Amino acid sequence: MGVITLTTDLGHRDFYQAALKGSIISQLPDVRIVDISHDIPSFSIQHAAFVINNAYPYFPKRTVHLIGVDTVFQEGARYLAMAYKGQFFVGADNGILSIILGEDRADEMVEINIMQDLRYLHFPLADIMTKAACHIANGGRLSGIGMPINNAMQKVTFQPVYNQNSIKGHVSYIDSFGNVISNISKELFNKVQEGREFILRFKRNETISKMSWHYNEVSEGEKLCLFGISNFLEIAINKGHAAQLLGLHQDETILIEFLDKR
Amino acid sequence: MGVITLTTDLGHRDFYQAALKGSIISQLPDVRIVDISHDIPSFSIQHAAFVINNAYPYFPKRTVHLIGVDTVFQEGARYLAMAYKGQFFVGADNGILSIILGEDRADEMVEINIMQDLRYLHFPLADIMTKAACHIANGGRLSGIGMPINNAMQKVTFQPVYNQNSIKGHVSYIDSFGNVISNISKELFNKVQEGREFILRFKRNETISKMSWHYNEVSEGEKLCLFGISNFLEIAINKGHAAQLLGLHQDETILIEFLDKR
Amino acid sequence: MGVITLTTDLGHRDFYQAALKGSIISQLPDVRIVDISHDIPSFSIQHAAFVINNAYPYFPKRTVHLIGVDTVFQEGARYLAMAYKGQFFVGADNGILSIILGEDRADEMVEINIMQDLRYLHFPLADIMTKAACHIANGGRLSGIGMPINNAMQKVTFQPVYNQNSIKGHVSYIDSFGNVISNISKELFNKVQEGREFILRFKRNETISKMSWHYNEVSEGEKLCLFGISNFLEIAINKGHAAQLLGLHQDETILIEFLDKR
Repeated sequence: MGVITLTTDLGHRDFYQAALKGSIISQLPDVRIVDISHDIPSFSIQHAAFVINNAYPYFPKRTVHLIGVDTVFQEGARYLAMAYKGQFFVGADNGILSIILGEDRADEMVEINIMQDLRYLHFPLADIMTKAACHIANGGRLSGIGMPINNAMQKVTFQPVYNQNSIKGHVSYIDSFGNVISNISKELFNKVQEGREFILRFKRNETISKMSWHYNEVSEGEKLCLFGISNFLEIAINKGHAAQLLGLHQDETILIEFLDKR
Repeated sequence: MGVITLTTDLGHRDFYQAALKGSIISQLPDVRIVDISHDIPSFSIQHAAFVINNAYPYFPKRTVHLIGVDTVFQEGARYLAMAYKGQFFVGADNGILSIILGEDRADEMVEINIMQDLRYLHFPLADIMTKAACHIANGGRLSGIGMPINNAMQKVTFQPVYNQNSIKGHVSYIDSFGNVISNISKELFNKVQEGREFILRFKRNETISKMSWHYNEVSEGEKLCLFGISNFLEIAINKGHAAQLLGLHQDETILIEFLDKR
Repeated sequence: MGVITLTTDLGHRDFYQAALKGSIISQLPDVRIVDISHDIPSFSIQHAAFVINNAYPYFPKRTVHLIGVDTVFQEGARYLAMAYKGQFFVGADNGILSIILGEDRADEMVEINIMQDLRYLHFPLADIMTKAACHIANGGRLSGIGMPINNAMQKVTFQPVYNQNSIKGHVSYIDSFGNVISNISKELFNKVQEGREFILRFKRNETISKMSWHYNEVSEGEKLCLFGISNFLEIAINKGHAAQLLGLHQDETILIEFLDKR
């Protein structure tokens, strides 16, 4: 039994996500469908990529991740499928795959060229993309649905800037609990830190200078920073909505200064 | 493995939709359950019918669509099941089936008369209706759960009014993206148009006189009209919320005037 | 095929509930996963317990209910599993199991002691708790994942106070429709009532003195009381949001006075 996950901005109030599922089970009656999220903000491929990048490592090998964000048909639109880390990703050629890959390369990438039924031209997600996902989930090869390409659309995602004594990153995601997740990975932090004390600075005057292991390490309502589930530096408030309480927004700058060893 | 879809106004915050699923899998452990939506506005059978009518064509033959909107038990309440287009629909006798059928007739319709357990009298959806759905999904015949009827409750849905040179319809649905979907079908439009130019009029002074194929055909923020996924005339704004930006509401009038051929 | 249900405060916008599902199907590819709710208010074990207590009776024997509310790791955190009423419940030792049990006892309860992978220390729900749930859903015994305990954390839930002529309870849950559900069970009501007339009093001056069987028994917009799906005394408004319209809040007092028989 194959597994197809769905990540879309279609919501649950309309018929769109249901149509997608109906289309999948009509083709592959035994497949398991897992909703990653249908609540991606409209057209936000950055949000979708963050969610998928953090979810896919939990899934079994050969899982097919169908990404239905910003897939609207237009002249010259392309739809892609790639193999990466033993799993598969199907999406429009809108930059989403480049964000998922970051600085990595796909093991294989094709432009999907199976014929599309003109009836569904307005809904490529339930047609061409679903067919591709079912083909792969059913054990088919990428070469069976498209031609290899090397030139998927690139989206720039800003990486942290660092030198020997500091790292400057930004807020890349705010979760439903209000936890503020930056683009500074644990690996980068450890590499620059070399065991030194640090001061995390954000907003005009806010600072944190201790790394926590758990949200509950400080009193309720107190701020903290930690490397959380996502493996990126996170600013949180124990049982509080950090983004609101600290006034932190998407893309806002986060600065870490490392102190001289005494 | 049978398929039962669920369309309800039960939401996801309470235990109601979970009880429904528990009840189904207790009866039919191998059935596939697909959520069409649990976010139908309370008691809105019009909204539910629109969603189901647009979703069911994507589902496999013999799918059972369980509709849990406005099903509250009361003196004289009836629950119905019908066969239509190779699929099945189970709902309360509140007019929903007549809206799904439009001007068509069901292939078969029964009033469900299987005994109900009085313990669940307050929740007919998780009792009598679920039993009926499982019976059908398990391959049972409609005649096994009820007596044939011809007199389901009728709900009037206003059809567009048209003459040789114009069609007057109304807004029948606004989706989560703010796309404004009318009750004017592509078939009716084509029949009256006969290849002529047209002016679509709405609100006091708004007009559109070009039919688009895709949302992306106009610049971002510009209005357009098209026949979208639903096959009905739709007013949209590329990457914008048309209903809000144009001030269009449910049931508001939409007028199409066809121009004389020159 | 085992069944695992999920009740969490993780929402659908982030990757957390998807990670949970990925983790489960990676371990147990054939298990059925049923979402009870991911919309529990953050950290609200009272809400979670109400939802689970009303949902589990609909599920098949041996269903495993995984409860992901207030599970954040901290020094000394414990995770528990219990057998109760032929089903299983896995949660953090935060009092949730004691609320589910009420005045009952578990058939068996263990503190989970399977090793945890430090990588997932921040997400015990997708690690230790998921492993326990899969072990049980796969037919394993509780003794295979932990040592018996008798001392789960207790949370006090206030029970109604009553004498021969009255019952004083409170609002324990407000559902999405605005129905106001009290902590006064049908059993307690019947025991004290002994067939007498009653006056239900709430807010300063509101009274109801008739027990309804169905929401539709009064005119639309009128208030009523009944024993609804949950088997607890409920104050509702036919097709209206009782909590808002009557100004009733969580934990507010509800008084029932029984009248002398004439």
